[in-house]
Amino acid sequence: MLIDGLQYANWSEKIFRQMRAGGVDAVHVTIAYHESFRETVLNFEAWNRWFELYPDLIMKGLTASDIDQARETGRTAIFFGFQNPSPIEDDIGLVEIVHTLGARFMQLTYNNQSLLATGCYEAEDTGITRMGRQVIKEMNRVGLVVDMSHSADRSTIEAAEISERPIAITHANPSSWAPARRNKSDDVIRAVTERGGMLGFSLYPHHLKDGSACTVESFCEMIARTADTFGTSHLGIGSDLCQDQPDSVVEWMRVGRWSKDIDYGEGSAAAPGFPPMQDWFQDNRDFGNIADGLRAVGMSDAEVASVMGGNWYRFFAESFGPEGRA
Amino acid sequence: MLIDGLQYANWSEKIFRQMRAGGVDAVHVTIAYHESFRETVLNFEAWNRWFELYPDLIMKGLTASDIDQARETGRTAIFFGFQNPSPIEDDIGLVEIVHTLGARFMQLTYNNQSLLATGCYEAEDTGITRMGRQVIKEMNRVGLVVDMSHSADRSTIEAAEISERPIAITHANPSSWAPARRNKSDDVIRAVTERGGMLGFSLYPHHLKDGSACTVESFCEMIARTADTFGTSHLGIGSDLCQDQPDSVVEWMRVGRWSKDIDYGEGSAAAPGFPPMQDWFQDNRDFGNIADGLRAVGMSDAEVASVMGGNWYRFFAESFGPEGRA
Repeated sequence: MLIDGLQYANWSEKIFRQMRAGGVDAVHVTIAYHESFRETVLNFEAWNRWFELYPDLIMKGLTASDIDQARETGRTAIFFGFQNPSPIEDDIGLVEIVHTLGARFMQLTYNNQSLLATGCYEAEDTGITRMGRQVIKEMNRVGLVVDMSHSADRSTIEAAEISERPIAITHANPSSWAPARRNKSDDVIRAVTERGGMLGFSLYPHHLKDGSACTVESFCEMIARTADTFGTSHLGIGSDLCQDQPDSVVEWMRVGRWSKDIDYGEGSAAAPGFPPMQDWFQDNRDFGNIADGLRAVGMSDAEVASVMGGNWYRFFAESFGPEGRA
Repeated sequence: MLIDGLQYANWSEKIFRQMRAGGVDAVHVTIAYHESFRETVLNFEAWNRWFELYPDLIMKGLTASDIDQARETGRTAIFFGFQNPSPIEDDIGLVEIVHTLGARFMQLTYNNQSLLATGCYEAEDTGITRMGRQVIKEMNRVGLVVDMSHSADRSTIEAAEISERPIAITHANPSSWAPARRNKSDDVIRAVTERGGMLGFSLYPHHLKDGSACTVESFCEMIARTADTFGTSHLGIGSDLCQDQPDSVVEWMRVGRWSKDIDYGEGSAAAPGFPPMQDWFQDNRDFGNIADGLRAVGMSDAEVASVMGGNWYRFFAESFGPEGRA
């Protein structure tokens, strides 16, 4: 079982075939950064077209059992998520609508303050807003997972406390290993995992110790130490793979339409584009290097299996149905 | 089995309870006349709220088997439809999106020319448009029924011919019985029913012989004669019940936002509002009067059962799934 907790590739038949070659059973795919509801629907439409064109490679994922079906038929199940709450605009009724359309994860913020919470790039973190509390309750009701990957610490801890169902940080690493703005303190990781939530380890160079030069040994040693501290069962991979994207896309992620000035986010004026991926993780065929690396740092086969997909599978199974009927 | 092929009431707990009192197992409910996609989503949202508030009275209907579940649990299954293609705007990708959200019927026109076909109030009927042919194919693919209740004759016959799956006239009567602009010629009824399509008999006074003064005997005699000509198995009820609606709603139906002038449609300056309903059909508790009337004009119990719901059930079962997997 191999499940990736986040990707945002420039999708193509080539990548779908690489997923199959890599034995990837399911991926949580971002379909909105700053899109309005109507724009997000266009992205659902684009995926409907992919499903129609490549029925032998991919299928829409709505429940964990769809992963079983994908495995039985040699396909990859695609689960949708948003990195911002912009798709629900200011309308709580859209939470159920986007869930019906297939959304299974929604970040409450993307770096900035949103209507719901504070992002990790704001100077002040005021926690979950009035609307945020209502939306978390509605997300809990319908089975849309609260994802706090790009949120600030107080907001993340409050979300974990307010949510009646486990939440996720789908793509980030411990800041104790790599002190990036997007990585998470032990307090944050504890608040999420001790309530049954998940942390997906990111392979995006800006989230790695030594960036693109990070070694697979260092990455896997970090996972093993995180497992020692927080337990293996709430850890997975969330690669944040942005394969084949032009640099205009990382600019869209960072700036959207909210600023007239360029914001370099985790990059810089000297290196504004996507950073080069480390040689041991270039695309969906490279997950085996991580599994091998985890065994090399002493994790058992059962532990490796749980981190590479088993834990996400259990979390998907518990999270995507109506409350009380997971 | 009691299924109504069209209603557009001012929904309330009172009406939901009347449905239960009348033993109505399923209703095709209009949720859009002239709404844009986003406005239609607000109407889906309003129904999600009804389902949340009254889970013991109503449930969302997506497949014919949901009617079985509704019967087993003493509820009414609500199936959604649009009387205009305005919810899909100019975007064929929205056909699958609205189907995913629960739409199961879509009229290609509402009285006027649309992007897809010609309405029954236009002077010239140019048939199915270029986009109309593409949309019919897509509706066939996903399982969204083509409804031609408010379309002009040539457009309706062409739709029946182009569609690879049976189509419907959910709410109209034979014009040979009551020559209203909205009623249908024998050629139109034949084109639809001989290809497996359905005709739902309307109880809206403007579609009845003698209007609000129409007798149940006359209405049921008309059904029996239609069955003699076209066969019983493609006939149902489509009451067009607009219970508890203020007259502002019939004005919205007729004029939407497409005209600055009032258009009285089937009404007149002297009688611009909803016509009074005949005393034998006031609300959802009165379907028994029709069943009794059909027996009184000589239809067998089996024939009455098929017209009151069995035929719609079969049509729903064949129509709402993906093509080739009804």
